[in-house]
This record gives sequence, C-alpha cells and structure tokens, in this order.
Amino acid sequence: MAAAAARTALARPHLPLPSSTRRSSRLSLTPSSAPGLRVVVVGGGATSIAAAAAPLQQQATTARLGDVIEAQQFDRDALNEIFEVAREMEAVERGSHGAPSRVLEGYLMATLFYEPSTRTRLSFEAAMRRLGGEVLTTENAREFSSAAKGETLEDTIRTVEGYSDIIVLRHFESGAARRAADTANIPVINAGDGPGQHPTQALLDVYTIKREIGTLDGIKLGLVGDLANGRTVRSLAYLIAKYQNIKIYFVSPDVVKMKDDIKEYLNSQGVAWEESSDLLEVASKCDVIYQTRIQKERFGERIDLYEAARGKYIVDKKVLGVLPKHAVIMHPLPRLDEITVDVDSDPRAAYFRQAKNGLYIRMALLKLLLVGH
Amino acid sequence: MAAAAARTALARPHLPLPSSTRRSSRLSLTPSSAPGLRVVVVGGGATSIAAAAAPLQQQATTARLGDVIEAQQFDRDALNEIFEVAREMEAVERGSHGAPSRVLEGYLMATLFYEPSTRTRLSFEAAMRRLGGEVLTTENAREFSSAAKGETLEDTIRTVEGYSDIIVLRHFESGAARRAADTANIPVINAGDGPGQHPTQALLDVYTIKREIGTLDGIKLGLVGDLANGRTVRSLAYLIAKYQNIKIYFVSPDVVKMKDDIKEYLNSQGVAWEESSDLLEVASKCDVIYQTRIQKERFGERIDLYEAARGKYIVDKKVLGVLPKHAVIMHPLPRLDEITVDVDSDPRAAYFRQAKNGLYIRMALLKLLLVGH
Amino acid sequence: MAAAAARTALARPHLPLPSSTRRSSRLSLTPSSAPGLRVVVVGGGATSIAAAAAPLQQQATTARLGDVIEAQQFDRDALNEIFEVAREMEAVERGSHGAPSRVLEGYLMATLFYEPSTRTRLSFEAAMRRLGGEVLTTENAREFSSAAKGETLEDTIRTVEGYSDIIVLRHFESGAARRAADTANIPVINAGDGPGQHPTQALLDVYTIKREIGTLDGIKLGLVGDLANGRTVRSLAYLIAKYQNIKIYFVSPDVVKMKDDIKEYLNSQGVAWEESSDLLEVASKCDVIYQTRIQKERFGERIDLYEAARGKYIVDKKVLGVLPKHAVIMHPLPRLDEITVDVDSDPRAAYFRQAKNGLYIRMALLKLLLVGH
Repeated sequence: MAAAAARTALARPHLPLPSSTRRSSRLSLTPSSAPGLRVVVVGGGATSIAAAAAPLQQQATTARLGDVIEAQQFDRDALNEIFEVAREMEAVERGSHGAPSRVLEGYLMATLFYEPSTRTRLSFEAAMRRLGGEVLTTENAREFSSAAKGETLEDTIRTVEGYSDIIVLRHFESGAARRAADTANIPVINAGDGPGQHPTQALLDVYTIKREIGTLDGIKLGLVGDLANGRTVRSLAYLIAKYQNIKIYFVSPDVVKMKDDIKEYLNSQGVAWEESSDLLEVASKCDVIYQTRIQKERFGERIDLYEAARGKYIVDKKVLGVLPKHAVIMHPLPRLDEITVDVDSDPRAAYFRQAKNGLYIRMALLKLLLVGH
Repeated sequence: MAAAAARTALARPHLPLPSSTRRSSRLSLTPSSAPGLRVVVVGGGATSIAAAAAPLQQQATTARLGDVIEAQQFDRDALNEIFEVAREMEAVERGSHGAPSRVLEGYLMATLFYEPSTRTRLSFEAAMRRLGGEVLTTENAREFSSAAKGETLEDTIRTVEGYSDIIVLRHFESGAARRAADTANIPVINAGDGPGQHPTQALLDVYTIKREIGTLDGIKLGLVGDLANGRTVRSLAYLIAKYQNIKIYFVSPDVVKMKDDIKEYLNSQGVAWEESSDLLEVASKCDVIYQTRIQKERFGERIDLYEAARGKYIVDKKVLGVLPKHAVIMHPLPRLDEITVDVDSDPRAAYFRQAKNGLYIRMALLKLLLVGH
Repeated sequence: MAAAAARTALARPHLPLPSSTRRSSRLSLTPSSAPGLRVVVVGGGATSIAAAAAPLQQQATTARLGDVIEAQQFDRDALNEIFEVAREMEAVERGSHGAPSRVLEGYLMATLFYEPSTRTRLSFEAAMRRLGGEVLTTENAREFSSAAKGETLEDTIRTVEGYSDIIVLRHFESGAARRAADTANIPVINAGDGPGQHPTQALLDVYTIKREIGTLDGIKLGLVGDLANGRTVRSLAYLIAKYQNIKIYFVSPDVVKMKDDIKEYLNSQGVAWEESSDLLEVASKCDVIYQTRIQKERFGERIDLYEAARGKYIVDKKVLGVLPKHAVIMHPLPRLDEITVDVDSDPRAAYFRQAKNGLYIRMALLKLLLVGH
C-alpha cells in the first residue's frame, strides 16, 4: 500500500492542474480495487530513495496503475497481477465474436507514434478494440504533426490529452515517455522511446516464458545475438532477475557482447550468468533460447563486422536437435535469417505465440490503467 | 426561416442527382428540428444578394446546417445555437465512459486530409467517436490517393461520398472546400483549405472567448503577432464584429501588419480598432490577448526579417503582470516561444482549454449536420 | 459440395497449426449455412486438376468462402451468390443510421496496404463498419513496417493474424496474396497484388453490369482504352466469359491492344469478340462501354506514344449521342480526360454508381468470409 501511494505521488511531481480533476475522479471510482497491484519504482536514483523513504500511509488510496514507462517500475507482485489479467484476456478475445467485451466502451486511446512500428501499433489498437474501446491513430506523427513546426512534445501531449483517455507514445528520443507522463493528466504507455525503454515488450517476453514453461523461478535462459544494442534482451535480463534461481547464458559475437552494467546488476541480485561461444551446448541446457536480430544499422560503415556477426549464431534444425523437449525458442521479431524458416513448424518455436501474447499484455495494461482490476 | 431555406437552396446549385435522394430523405427526418438555426451567406457577392432577394417561403422546410465552408456563413443566431450545442457536448464527453453517447451511431465520417494536420484531424475524429460515430481516415491523401494520378477533387469526392455520411476536408488549395460541397450530396466540413478558410478554428476561438469571459458583447481583444498571414486572426476579427461594443487592438511587427480589407470591414461594421506597438499597455486593457506564431515559411529567404519579427512581441510573466485578473491568453497552437512556458501554469493561460473547445465545437457541428439539433 | 470441400482443402495446403483451432471452431459455427456457395479454382494448373479430380465427399462440411485471391476462383453459382448478398447489403447500408447492422460486431479487419490505394482501402473499411465490424489500418505498410527491416511477408502475416479476424492485403508483388493466404489461418482478401489480380474490382464490375442492365447473359460489351496493361479489363473479359451469348468489342490504340492470351481464352469459351477502331460504331451497338485510363507509367520515356494513345478514344457527348438509351458507361476510376466531364450528368454515366457497388461487393465478401451466408 505504501509503495502504491508513493508511486502515485511520484508519478505526478507537478501540482495538479485544474484539468486533472477528471483523472482524480476516475481514480476515486475504484478506491481499492486492486490491492495487490503495487507499483514500485526501482533504480530511479534519488527519486526512488525518496519513494522508499516515504512514510506508510494509513489509507489505501488507489492501486490503479498510473503510467507504464519502464520495465524497472514493476516488482514481482505487479508482474504477477498483470500476468493474471493477461491470462483472463485470452478468454475475452476468444469470446469477442459472440459477445464482444464492453469493458472499455466509451474510452478513447490515442496512438501517438513519432516513428513507425506497425507491429506494436496494431497490437495496441487490436487490444483496445478487443475490449470495446476506440482508437485515434497517428501512424507517423514526426513527419505529419506540429512537431515539424517546432512544437514541443509537452504541448502536443496537452492537446492530445484533451481528445483521448489514454496515450500510447512511440518516440525516437530516450526519455520522451517520462516527459509525456509528467505532462499528461491521463495515463501514458511507453511503446518504445528510441534507445531507451520498451516496457510492454519486456512484459510480454516474461509473460511468454511463464506461459510456455509454466514457471519463472528456476529458469535457464540463453540470450543470443546482439546483446549490446538490443533493448529487449537487456530489459529481459533485468526483469527475470526478480525471480529465484535464474541462470543466464550470453551467446553473442564479440562485437556485440552484453555490457557490464547488466552483468553487474545480475551479480548484485545474485543471478548466475556466464558467457559462452557454443550455442549448441547452451541450447542443450536451457529452458528458453531467446534469439535476436543483429541490427545492421548499429554497424555504420563496418559492413564486414556486421556480416561476420550476423552468421555466427543461427537457430536451426541442429539447435532443435539438442534443445530439450519442453524448451522454447523466442524472438522479439522481426527476424531475418537468424532463425531458419524450417524451425517454424516445430512446436517449440514460440515466437509467433510470443507476438500474440503482446496482445494479451496490452489488453491487460489498458484495462488496468483505465478501469483497474 | 427564409434565410435557412435560401441557404439550403444555395448550398446545392447543381440539380439533385439521383443519388441525392438519400440526403433528402435524411433531411426530411427532422423537418423543423432546429428553427433557430439560420445560416446566412455573407459577403459572397452576387450569390448572397440572390440569397437575400429570395422570397420568403411559407413552409419551414429544414434547418439542418448544410455544410461548413467559411466563417462568413454564420450569423449571430447561428453562432449562438452552435455554442449552445457545444456547451451540451461537455456533458456528453464527461459521460462517455459510463454511458457513451449513441447520437451518431451508425454514421461514418471520412476525414480526407490532403495535407497533414494531426491536431485538427484528431479533434474531428475524437468528436465523432465521442458521439458514437465511426471514422474513415486518410492522413495524407495528397501523396497517397488517386490525386497523384491526376484525379480531380470532384471525382474523389463523388467516390468518397458513396462510402461515408459526412466528409471533413483539409486541402492545400483555397476554395477546395466550396468545390467539394458543390459536388457532394452529403455534408462537407472545411477543416482548412490552404490560405483560405478554417471555419471550425474561428468558431472555437469565439466560443472560447464566450466560455472564458462569459460574454462576447463589449469584449476588448488584443490580436498579436503575424496579423498579415494568420487566417485565424483574420477570421476572428471578422466574426467578433458581429457583436456589440467590440474594441480590437492590433499588435504586430510592421512586416506582418493586419491588412486593409479587414480594417475596412471593421469600419463598415462600426467596430473600433487601433494599432499599437506597446504590448504591455494593450494587455493591461484587454479581456483577451490572442497571440499567434510568426510563420517562418512566409518569409522565404529573408530569415533576418523573420528573426526580427519573431522576438518582438512575447507573452511572458511581464505581460501576465499587467493583464487583468479576469482576462485570458489565447493561441491557436502550435506555439514556439511567442508565449513563454512559465505562463502555462497561470490560470489565465487558456490555450489548452481553447484546443479542448475545438472538440466541443466539432462535436456540435457533426451533430447539427448529421441529425440536427 | 465436392467443389466446396475441394476448395476448402486446397486453401490450406499446410497442416493446421495449433493456432488454427480458432478458425476451425468458427467454421463449425455455421456448418452448412451456404450450401450454394461453391468456390472452384479454375486455371490453376496441376492444383485445379487435383481439385477437379477430388472424390465427392459425403458430408457437406462447410461452404464458407475461404479466401478471395483471384477472379478465376469464382464460378457462375459463386458469383450469383455473392451478387445476391451484395444486393441485400444495399438495404443494410440504408438502414445503418436508424438501426446499424451488428452482423460483424466484435470482428476485426486488418487492412495491410503495402502500396497506397485510398479508394480501395476506404471502401473496404466502410464495408466493415457498415456491418458493425472494426478496423486496424495500415496506410503504407511498405515504408513503415518491419518490411523495411527485411521481414518476410509470411512473418508479417503470422503476426497480424494474431491481432485480427481477416486480412485485406494490397501488395506490389504479383502472387503476394496467394502467399499470404497459404500462410494465414484467417481469411485473406486480395485487394490488388501489383500487376497480378484485383478480384474485388472484377466482381464489382460484373455486379454493376448486372445491376445496371438487369442481366449478364447476352451482353454486348465494349472494352476501350489500355487493354494491354489494364488488369480490370482482362479480369472482366475473363469473368464475363462465364455467361451466355456474350459479344466483346476491343477498342484500343495499337500500342495497347488486348493480348492474345485473353483472345484465345475467349475463343476456347466460345465467346464472340472483334477488334474495332471505330468507337462510335461500337458504342451504337453495345449495352456497356467500359472505358479505361491510358496508364502513362507504362510508357516509360515514350511520352510521344503515350500522348498519341491517350487522345484517341474519348467518351464524350458524341458517344452519348449514339449510345442506346438503356446502355451505360463504366470506368474503374480514377479517370483523367478519357471521359469528358459533361458526360457525368447523363443517367447512363454509371461509373460513380460502379464505385459505390464496390462497397456492396466488399460488404458481401466480408460477411460471407466471416460469418457465412
């Protein structure tokens, strides 16, 4: 409760504006509807220390999830609650033809995308519609909007919040989602802010492991590919560290090795990890192989380095041959040839189910942010 | 009544096509539902003389608003009626979560934007959805549509009117909205046609003054910034002249002074106006300071002139210091630095509420055009 | 029945994936709801021979239309059934304001457009909404989506099918729609794949002839303009050949004459055809003049050839003067000047009604694909 209260306070460092009354009133509609949903800011430096130091409050004000900005904001209990709602969403989606959900009827989501990401945008918009809500779309706000005339993100947010109930923001600048959330009086979900965060991807990755393997504690996880630049593997390593008895194997070309900050963080959390250059050996021991694309755009003119890195670790039939029966292959997509197409028909190829889980996670977040548990 | 009938006749100079039966039947559904909504064409030259000369008709056929093409089409009674409905829309929007409006259920609006304007598009689409209607979107019709193959606007309109119930048109050519309305058998709303008209902006500006100050008669209004090129200030000056005891101050760099046509119009209407180069003195006497952006794109290569004009009249804390307690600052947005950010938190900063009023005005127009009062 | 069963089998050459259970269950909801809708693959080479050779099956499993990929897949009975439903859709659309249809409530259509086509996209989206369904839009997937990062169409389809109930695909590559349908476990509609097929255009063309003239058997049809490159006239010639006593006149500049494959096909079907260079004489004998645009983009640098071809056969008042009273002018749109604007007001100008019929045909297909007859 204290944590929730602290988070609520933290999420709105600015004084409430007159227009914030609307949000407050919505909050009061579900005074303690989600007692288990505690949202803690972790790793936020001075701010989170302040949060930790906040005195316990007597009254359980609200447990509505405020904004979704970064993977670090979720503790284990919050993750569990989100995953529980996501699981319920599978039934909601299945029933949509006979008796479509009206949970978010009358709610409007604005997808404000400053850079294109069709996959992410469509999954958010599908999530909103599967719950009976409506959508305002901007497919390429950077080129089209007033941003081209020099308007600040903050001004755009203040306008768009007048037209919608929740903003899903994709931006090219790290930190943009936090700035938007600090400005808006309606919830903001970060759908990726440049090299920064992509928390809903991180959530769907962890949810997929739980859904496919049945548990998160005790997982052996092989992270493969571009570990230096891939924000998904970095966030996944971060989140999985919240669970018990985790073992992580890093398998990557030397030029794109996992960086020290994550290794040190894992050490601090008591998570076992090692680096390996033998994908087959790692695959034979893991519950999850998480493959990633080597991102050509990170190599600049060094096409030679890119080509060398790209072909080094491929998930193919040979990898399937040693992979345990219960294990799965994951990939954030899009993939090029780092997983061969003949792997797709194996039941352990979980990457399209993983993409589908993005729908359930986003349905769960929209529900939690707009109407609570 | 006569005026309404005249307008109805005027809006369709062409003979009804076979397909126009649909519109007629919709019109007849609300035979005299909005007796007060008289729409007069003003300043349209020969056409409007013909309108004025039209004989009174015995039967009050319909008072449905036909199209929204230019600010000049509205007289005081029409404005009042629109503002009254806009005010009702605030309650409709507030209730949208619990019991969403179904007023426009089953109606389809096509937003046909030949140039991007995210703010205007989203506010129209939000307006339609808040009333239970649906939307077909074209974010950048100029680049994407058959226009690139040489199709005329008229042909595009005849196709799109077959797929929708109302067309919201944004175009880069002055007069495009009128051409569209002359072609279409469904209502057309002008969402800005190049250097021409942007009537819904003009309406929301006047509505904001009424909503913020409580009255329109007797208003003292300071128009600041680019008065030569800004169509918003020109339309606002035009519309506010319909009210009593108005005083307008023009405050602008010399290169972008208000043009003579508006000054002469104000004279003809008995509206008092003066030019001033002292923003502080004007601000101390006004009910409304309407600031505008100096539009760089109008200066071509004369960046020096732009830079000189841009910094000359800034609304900042000093202006707030002399501004009456009851007065407000308005701006059509987007803004750059012509209003400093530290002004935003002052309760007299009305520009984001003004943007929000765009939603209510557009809700009102959609309701009036599609189902009447 | 055999044909339907064969088609159902053909449409899914790959083994059902785990996720296909969803589709199966939907199929079973309407076990034999459309017994008359037999869908035959024609002209598909070995595959269609296999289809024809498939043994009769005892059980009428399903007659749900599987995918809409090419004009050739429809036989006369299938066409008649689609046209019958299309006709019903006129009433559904008319009633949409008072009592909007909920036939497709809870269904989500993804419009995945790899090249822009505003007309086609809007008509599909309007069709879905007029039936109470919802839409996920991608206006320009080629530029925006993961395709830019090298993702295959198949991978994109597998992702998007997780977010929607039906995919409408527009693609720049011939054969893309077939590949998508072979991948997807939900229905796919081809909205044009490059120089390949555009079956919904072909269907609406044939439907328009039936709707305007009252019959298809015995029709005299003049195909005018670019007959070499226009896929609409090629598909139309193909489909009309399924009817009795058809006579086709080809009227085109020499450089863009109808190709031999279609002529040979017509011969094989016993359809009479001739070439003519006298548009007036042809017009005086026809029930339908189908004019097409000379496509400049096909002439490369030979602007001289384009200009010569372009002006040769114009439908104007002179053509109207000789055209029978009951006959009509059709055009797939967009048009440039190959039909003069003064033709538009003649009741025999059917091209905008033809565009409107695209709405009814697409409504019919969406209904048939998603819930059956």
